[in-house]
Amino acid sequence: MSDSASSAQTFRAIDVIRKKRDGGELSRFEIGALIAAYTQGSIPDYQVSAWLMAVVLRGMTRGETAALTDAMLRSGEVLDLSGIAAKKVDKHSTGGVGDKTSLVLAPLAAVAGVTVPMISGRGLGHTGGTLDKLEAIPGFHVNLPVPEFRRVLEVCGCAMIGQTAEIAPADRKLYALRDVTGTVESPYLICASIMSKKMAEGIDALVLDVKTGSGAFMKSEKDAAFLAELMVETGERMGKRTVALITDMDQPLGNMIGNALEVVEAVDVLRGGGPQDLRDLCLELAAWMLHLGGISKTVAEGKQESAKLLASGKALERFREMVELQGGDPGVIDDPKTLPQARHSQQVLSAKDGYIASLQCEQVGTACVILGGGRERKEDSVDPAVGIVLHRKVGDRVGVGEPIATIYYNSGSRVERAQQLLEESCGISDSPPSEKRLLIHRVIGN
Amino acid sequence: MSDSASSAQTFRAIDVIRKKRDGGELSRFEIGALIAAYTQGSIPDYQVSAWLMAVVLRGMTRGETAALTDAMLRSGEVLDLSGIAAKKVDKHSTGGVGDKTSLVLAPLAAVAGVTVPMISGRGLGHTGGTLDKLEAIPGFHVNLPVPEFRRVLEVCGCAMIGQTAEIAPADRKLYALRDVTGTVESPYLICASIMSKKMAEGIDALVLDVKTGSGAFMKSEKDAAFLAELMVETGERMGKRTVALITDMDQPLGNMIGNALEVVEAVDVLRGGGPQDLRDLCLELAAWMLHLGGISKTVAEGKQESAKLLASGKALERFREMVELQGGDPGVIDDPKTLPQARHSQQVLSAKDGYIASLQCEQVGTACVILGGGRERKEDSVDPAVGIVLHRKVGDRVGVGEPIATIYYNSGSRVERAQQLLEESCGISDSPPSEKRLLIHRVIGN
Repeated sequence: MSDSASSAQTFRAIDVIRKKRDGGELSRFEIGALIAAYTQGSIPDYQVSAWLMAVVLRGMTRGETAALTDAMLRSGEVLDLSGIAAKKVDKHSTGGVGDKTSLVLAPLAAVAGVTVPMISGRGLGHTGGTLDKLEAIPGFHVNLPVPEFRRVLEVCGCAMIGQTAEIAPADRKLYALRDVTGTVESPYLICASIMSKKMAEGIDALVLDVKTGSGAFMKSEKDAAFLAELMVETGERMGKRTVALITDMDQPLGNMIGNALEVVEAVDVLRGGGPQDLRDLCLELAAWMLHLGGISKTVAEGKQESAKLLASGKALERFREMVELQGGDPGVIDDPKTLPQARHSQQVLSAKDGYIASLQCEQVGTACVILGGGRERKEDSVDPAVGIVLHRKVGDRVGVGEPIATIYYNSGSRVERAQQLLEESCGISDSPPSEKRLLIHRVIGN
Repeated sequence: MSDSASSAQTFRAIDVIRKKRDGGELSRFEIGALIAAYTQGSIPDYQVSAWLMAVVLRGMTRGETAALTDAMLRSGEVLDLSGIAAKKVDKHSTGGVGDKTSLVLAPLAAVAGVTVPMISGRGLGHTGGTLDKLEAIPGFHVNLPVPEFRRVLEVCGCAMIGQTAEIAPADRKLYALRDVTGTVESPYLICASIMSKKMAEGIDALVLDVKTGSGAFMKSEKDAAFLAELMVETGERMGKRTVALITDMDQPLGNMIGNALEVVEAVDVLRGGGPQDLRDLCLELAAWMLHLGGISKTVAEGKQESAKLLASGKALERFREMVELQGGDPGVIDDPKTLPQARHSQQVLSAKDGYIASLQCEQVGTACVILGGGRERKEDSVDPAVGIVLHRKVGDRVGVGEPIATIYYNSGSRVERAQQLLEESCGISDSPPSEKRLLIHRVIGN
């Protein structure tokens, strides 16, 4: 609380806090100076948390959101992938349960001719994370140094790594602060966090998958649409073609939840099979990646091309190549038994006849976390083997005593609570529920 | 940002932050736990600053404000003055320019039979502080230990000291944080800060002087009235008779601004003289102190009694007694020349004929600060000798070349800027301005 707290040339943190508190629009300079000073450690957490709360409650204009994204992006390095001739396109999801699309999309878009420099996160709360899924593959390295990341990209057109220290350090510091100060829930801050990291990947275009429903961060379609529009406009303002699909996360995506299980299901899709909903979403997202990457003239053409590459096994071969290049055991593709296996399993049986009306997605995700498949706190380690396989999805018929799901577990003390949550998550009705679209809405940049 | 940041039994700071962020009403337990944890240092500044910003933007209910006041009060000691039979009544002003009423009121109410345990503050920004004025008296001690404070009270019925470490430590910590996080400007937080310290004085009743106008913290009457009502309700909820007067601070109070000069003018009033506006306000405030202290049946009676005690010289004698008991030189009462004297003086002359239409109060206060008579930062020391004497007030006629004010200064490098500010502060019009009431409004508790 010394004076140094609010110094640095003509910029004073206290003035920026007050301006936002009073509903003013901050200039690019003010936002840039605040983020630079915080990243350097020359303004304290307590000033930034007050500012963050003012942003949560006062909001930001589109210009402020882009300026914040830009300031966070420029707090670190931007990958220079200009040496790679192909268009660089990434996909980002706001997070859900059973969402293993990244594992399918990176090799699928790469084999079509797009370069996919994918930097992903870990699971937190009830949602899974791509890095945790990849690490279920024995030997797979997600922490490649940037030159090695670039080499894998050059060789096979896709690479999947974790956040590096060089990329958007402001976001890491801000996110840690937001997490403990009740300032996570702001579309402006969420947008800047996501977009600053994605723009640092040196991409030409971005496809966003904004989830909505009981398993999503944005529970309502309205909130999801707002965030989607904000991210698309921010991406376009930063000169990148950006598209957002708003997709359903009211029940888990696909049938398998849990890290090793999700690798198995992703491989099924890459082999041309897999559950319909997962396959459909992969084709939709891949089509947009191919279209924005200049490979397909239309989205419809991109979808056809993607379906062909799944059917031919070419996408799967590219996945195999990437796994090998990143140190993983490609044997898991041919024999899922070489993935970590849970020691025990137990079925969840239906207590009555009827139709599955709902599978409360956050509860299913939390059941997987309780088994050890996710983390309640950042420091927690993850058990790759555990998880849940759903035998029924929303709309399916079920008879009394028939299995709804199978739980794969290693710790007997945890299975009971997981079972209870799964039973609670599942609503059964006498008549079939109204059908829900998987793809709810598209937001397309200019 | 560790987990310890949000632990402690069933109370989690993050939950309290989120609840206030979302516009919820906090319970007495939640507010109490937050303030207790912060005072003990078991939750960090960055969580409390986020919560403070949420309070600034979401507001508080009357119940929350009283709970916050109570929690801050209970962070430290409450003086036990039950050994003194007389009613204990204090007066608090929200701060202004030339406001030396406390120096008059403490001995005046004391000689009438009320006990006045007055704990005051220092000047900050453009406003003066009672402690700085008292310290202009050679030898006067404002930092009496509590037993000595009690002894002075018992002997002469009034004593005037500075904040002690034992009283409301939560307020000291919170105020320092609010000062650097843009969270000062909230009537709820201002109310809790003022009332927690006043309630800790062990008083039976409180008279509040809420200033409004260009020299006040609350520029608008509406904001002043809101704060006044909030403080009165909070005081009454805590079982103390509380009254607020909303009074004009659109021009300085009295004619003298500066620490030693204000002692001179207070002594003038105590001697039965002094400028009309200052004398009127002292009588109004004293009347309420006497009425709430059970000395006068009505406020009108209290005013008559107070006027008598000024005319008879009894109030001045009580002031002399208090000055002596607190180590000060009572000679200053008989010979103002024994107060610190500035080496130089300079007149501010009117550039035209007309009526004084305004004396922008914040500018006049700032001129005094520039001369060295106030502090821009808490660490600054104060020059007791410097200041300004106004020869004209709003509504007075002035001819071209006639003096509006005299500046008393010690540093030639500062006088020019002070002179310029005084000239700017003074608006002269051809016709007399409409008259303004000094007492704008009263808020009386149940």
